[in-house]
Amino acid sequence: MTDNSILSGIKSPSDLKKLSAEELNILADEIRAKIIDTVSENGGHLASNLGVVELTIALHTVFDLPNDKIVWDVGHQSYAHKLLTGRNDTLGTIRTEDGISGFPKRNESIYDAFDTGHSSTSVSAAFGIACADRLNDGKNYTIAVIGDGALTGGLSFEALNCAGRSKERLIVILNDNKMSISKNVGSMARYLTKLRIQPSYIKAKSRVHSRLDRFNGVGRAITNTIRNIKNWIKINLFGNRKTMFEQLGFNYYGPLNGHDIQQLQSALRAAKYSKGAVFLHVCTVKGKGYEFAEKNPKNYHGISAFDMETGEPKSSTKGYSDIFGEFMCETAEKDRRICAITAAMAMGTGLSDFSEKYKNRFFDVGIAEEHAVTFASGLAAGEMIPVFAVYSTFLQRSYDQILHDAALQKLHIVLAVDRAGVVGEDGETHQGIFDVAFLNTIPNITIFAPASFSELREMLHSAIYNTPNIAVVRYPRGGEHYLPEEYKYDGSDYCFVGNKKSRKLIVTYGRIFSYACEAAKNLGAKGTDVCVLKLNKIKPISDNAVSGAMNFKEVYFFEEGIKTGGVGESFGFLMYQKNFRGKFRLVAIEDFVKQAKVDSSLAKLRLDAGGIEKTVLNRTD
Amino acid sequence: MTDNSILSGIKSPSDLKKLSAEELNILADEIRAKIIDTVSENGGHLASNLGVVELTIALHTVFDLPNDKIVWDVGHQSYAHKLLTGRNDTLGTIRTEDGISGFPKRNESIYDAFDTGHSSTSVSAAFGIACADRLNDGKNYTIAVIGDGALTGGLSFEALNCAGRSKERLIVILNDNKMSISKNVGSMARYLTKLRIQPSYIKAKSRVHSRLDRFNGVGRAITNTIRNIKNWIKINLFGNRKTMFEQLGFNYYGPLNGHDIQQLQSALRAAKYSKGAVFLHVCTVKGKGYEFAEKNPKNYHGISAFDMETGEPKSSTKGYSDIFGEFMCETAEKDRRICAITAAMAMGTGLSDFSEKYKNRFFDVGIAEEHAVTFASGLAAGEMIPVFAVYSTFLQRSYDQILHDAALQKLHIVLAVDRAGVVGEDGETHQGIFDVAFLNTIPNITIFAPASFSELREMLHSAIYNTPNIAVVRYPRGGEHYLPEEYKYDGSDYCFVGNKKSRKLIVTYGRIFSYACEAAKNLGAKGTDVCVLKLNKIKPISDNAVSGAMNFKEVYFFEEGIKTGGVGESFGFLMYQKNFRGKFRLVAIEDFVKQAKVDSSLAKLRLDAGGIEKTVLNRTD
Repeated sequence: MTDNSILSGIKSPSDLKKLSAEELNILADEIRAKIIDTVSENGGHLASNLGVVELTIALHTVFDLPNDKIVWDVGHQSYAHKLLTGRNDTLGTIRTEDGISGFPKRNESIYDAFDTGHSSTSVSAAFGIACADRLNDGKNYTIAVIGDGALTGGLSFEALNCAGRSKERLIVILNDNKMSISKNVGSMARYLTKLRIQPSYIKAKSRVHSRLDRFNGVGRAITNTIRNIKNWIKINLFGNRKTMFEQLGFNYYGPLNGHDIQQLQSALRAAKYSKGAVFLHVCTVKGKGYEFAEKNPKNYHGISAFDMETGEPKSSTKGYSDIFGEFMCETAEKDRRICAITAAMAMGTGLSDFSEKYKNRFFDVGIAEEHAVTFASGLAAGEMIPVFAVYSTFLQRSYDQILHDAALQKLHIVLAVDRAGVVGEDGETHQGIFDVAFLNTIPNITIFAPASFSELREMLHSAIYNTPNIAVVRYPRGGEHYLPEEYKYDGSDYCFVGNKKSRKLIVTYGRIFSYACEAAKNLGAKGTDVCVLKLNKIKPISDNAVSGAMNFKEVYFFEEGIKTGGVGESFGFLMYQKNFRGKFRLVAIEDFVKQAKVDSSLAKLRLDAGGIEKTVLNRTD
Repeated sequence: MTDNSILSGIKSPSDLKKLSAEELNILADEIRAKIIDTVSENGGHLASNLGVVELTIALHTVFDLPNDKIVWDVGHQSYAHKLLTGRNDTLGTIRTEDGISGFPKRNESIYDAFDTGHSSTSVSAAFGIACADRLNDGKNYTIAVIGDGALTGGLSFEALNCAGRSKERLIVILNDNKMSISKNVGSMARYLTKLRIQPSYIKAKSRVHSRLDRFNGVGRAITNTIRNIKNWIKINLFGNRKTMFEQLGFNYYGPLNGHDIQQLQSALRAAKYSKGAVFLHVCTVKGKGYEFAEKNPKNYHGISAFDMETGEPKSSTKGYSDIFGEFMCETAEKDRRICAITAAMAMGTGLSDFSEKYKNRFFDVGIAEEHAVTFASGLAAGEMIPVFAVYSTFLQRSYDQILHDAALQKLHIVLAVDRAGVVGEDGETHQGIFDVAFLNTIPNITIFAPASFSELREMLHSAIYNTPNIAVVRYPRGGEHYLPEEYKYDGSDYCFVGNKKSRKLIVTYGRIFSYACEAAKNLGAKGTDVCVLKLNKIKPISDNAVSGAMNFKEVYFFEEGIKTGGVGESFGFLMYQKNFRGKFRLVAIEDFVKQAKVDSSLAKLRLDAGGIEKTVLNRTD
């Protein structure tokens, strides 16, 4: 990007309003180039950002931020927005430690109206902001930009049901790219396709919009004319038929070409003059402008750093998700009761092969984690063995369903909790640090915490075949780590590694068991003898594990999860209850964890080998 | 009910199939009488049960349970189903200790296919059961019966989106009575009204259905004819317009008269022959057949024992909800930023007056607890002060929204958590025993636990005006209890009552503080000196409270909430961490709690005065 680019001159959205239509198109190209360049370095969300470049430009030319507000659903598509709101110079730091976030953050910019990260929140939040504006006698607009994938989440529907007939200045923009992360699923997706392919409508719309353009900026006097035209659009093209969104009380306009800035501007201006809430259906191409991403958008949804010329990722190693996927295929081959469920994450959770080989028993439910669990409970009531593979952070959505629909009835469902623990660059909204604590509150649950690929396989087998009620297996993002040669998983609930006559004991579970072993080795080399207790099952806590820990004088518990309500607290409490009178120190996560590389985060949290070593030596540096 | 009633002859659904149309109508009257009689004694859900008597009869005559399965959404409308499935003799025990449940329970009857209690789960669960049946090569039907209120919950929509285009033998029956608990809200409700009032359609439908009747039982051969008729219905009446449910991929039939058994039977038989999932729109009258309930169904939704002749409740005392409602009105009068949100529980949470006086700032979002919290977060981002009044058990639905949409952004929202603790006759699905533990896992939260009406008022004031981020005030169902005269709340985080030089200390919070004081008084009278530490704020735990507790030799913590992850564990852990070496005993809830009167449950859990006394004396009887 040279200094005389248009983009470099945009310090705030007001600069954008001075540009000609031609310049806006050039700007779109510059933004695209910058995003591809940045994501190829830092990793991030590519395809979704390339899809909304023109929409973002159109929004910032028609609306007046920060008075008007945009809520970006999920928020992974906000890079162009960041570039146009004073963050051109810092985009290079995106998703890095102390850099800007890959998601909207209120504390990063006054142009970010609401923090997002999880799906389907935008209409609820935007409707709240719009109501507040009205109650404060404001005249500002609130815009929710939501993908067709996010629309499959029930929260969206709850919000549409409430917002539909309101008189707020609310504009819901459906960014319809036929995708959630993989191809979008369900009836809504088919319905949108039907809306999209009404050719007569699209043609007529274009004509109407060129008429609308003449009125741009003329103001209130022409609203009646515009309204008449809009009625004409509807009557002419749909007859009396109403779209689902009109049935929900919205003024529906669309479908629009999401890559035509002027068409979008016209529609957004028309939306401003609508009485009541508006639903604008915008069709975009995910990955637009980058050949590899357009062809295979799901591979370029959330992506690690890649080679710009070839589109190939710079590194690729086998991870826990792959092992999980392999195991599921093998097990399904032998046992026809095995079903796999994903909430729009077939690829991320390693279920791509399964989805092809066992179509009948594979269920992609859309971004609908609540339904996934209750549906799994139904399958279990019907004598199947459902395995729901889900990222830890998204399982938060299913708390009530796990408790009320599965645990209470003692149904046997398996939760394969991927991305458990710290996840890195996606930051606060995506850390998998709460699952242990919130699952810990629920009766009738067993939680396994593997620390290697082979343990993952064995524990999944136990979860499926030897565990009653709800069985959870949680494992981290990425690959496996060093484990000492003398260690071998034997299917027991816990395991001591090292000298049981030591004064000091490290207790831990999951991925950081590797770091505990490393720390113990280093400490041993320096003359401090330390034993390690690895918990294989973290709920229920083995009474014998607690008793075993009682034999040490100093116990150090390390937990890659939230402290309050976590297993460390429960374990310590049980030790004390058994009359332990030695030292118990708990190192766990005490707050949300910001973006950084996983290793860096773990180091800061004192959960890496170095941190564990220091803690055991009672060093506070 | 005399012995020669038809109802008394029904031992299982097969007996029903022998009855004539005339007898079925008489049976409906008998069932109604029995339900009114029972609920007037035991309390329970009246209006919703009276609404589905004919529907339940029709279902049991057309389908073949337990091979076919019915999932009752919420399940409070399953009384007629219980009467027809071998529980006529035990209905008198409904909602009592050791009696049958007011909700479907798999462990109570083979005719209860899936446990329900929380709203909007039925389509998910039924779809799971239907898929399992298909995978097991079965040919059975699965029926979800869902109210129009439950349809406003996002989980329903997630499930409809997945089930709509499936080929399973799934029949979704919308029991449309225009109500959730209060009048139903939102766009969906208006849309259903629109469907209902198409008179030409209803007329034509009746004619068609009498034609359909001739084919009953003739079997597969006539399916084509039936299909033709159905197409005729659709084409004739809707033209090309499709209902929203057809847009979601269902075969839609309706609206039907939910009190005409034969019409319902015809429609259900037609549904059996449909290819793919069916959506049957049935209109019922909530409270049908009991004058008082028909006129004012929301008063007869969940109800205590009442006088059958006058319809008046047998007892009525002021409860925490009333005080909350009064406080909200007073505060809203003085401060225009105060907003109240309810998820279809305006009356139950005490917000009826507020809803009339401050219409602009009152938001009934439907049965949509997820949206309620994210919407509240949006209001807070817009500088309003939203107070979401919600039952503890239903707040379980909002875990992710509290964490991700409010806590992470440090938005100031207030959660007024009603029905906290044991709730009594509704049983396991409705106990408010998890909120403390799951909220305990979330950063940036303050939780207040009032033990009297005046404390509720003062703590609400603190929550609204003197607490950053998320402020929770949790209070029980019902009225206030005995408190010692010398005790007075002074706004501090904790308070010692009694002799601080005692050897023994009771620590507790909320309602059972009353029982702790009673136990302390009784113990004192018997010569055992006991001090009581009342926690006013249970999160974050006051460091000084912990330090204060260190001065005692024996500490007994009583918690009316789940043990694992709860405040008792955290408190005990903190004491031990500070080097407490005395005795610490925690009495809390360790599993789901079955239905019983509140006092009886608390006694069983050793959380009443007697239980506390025994525990402090180390008696195990």
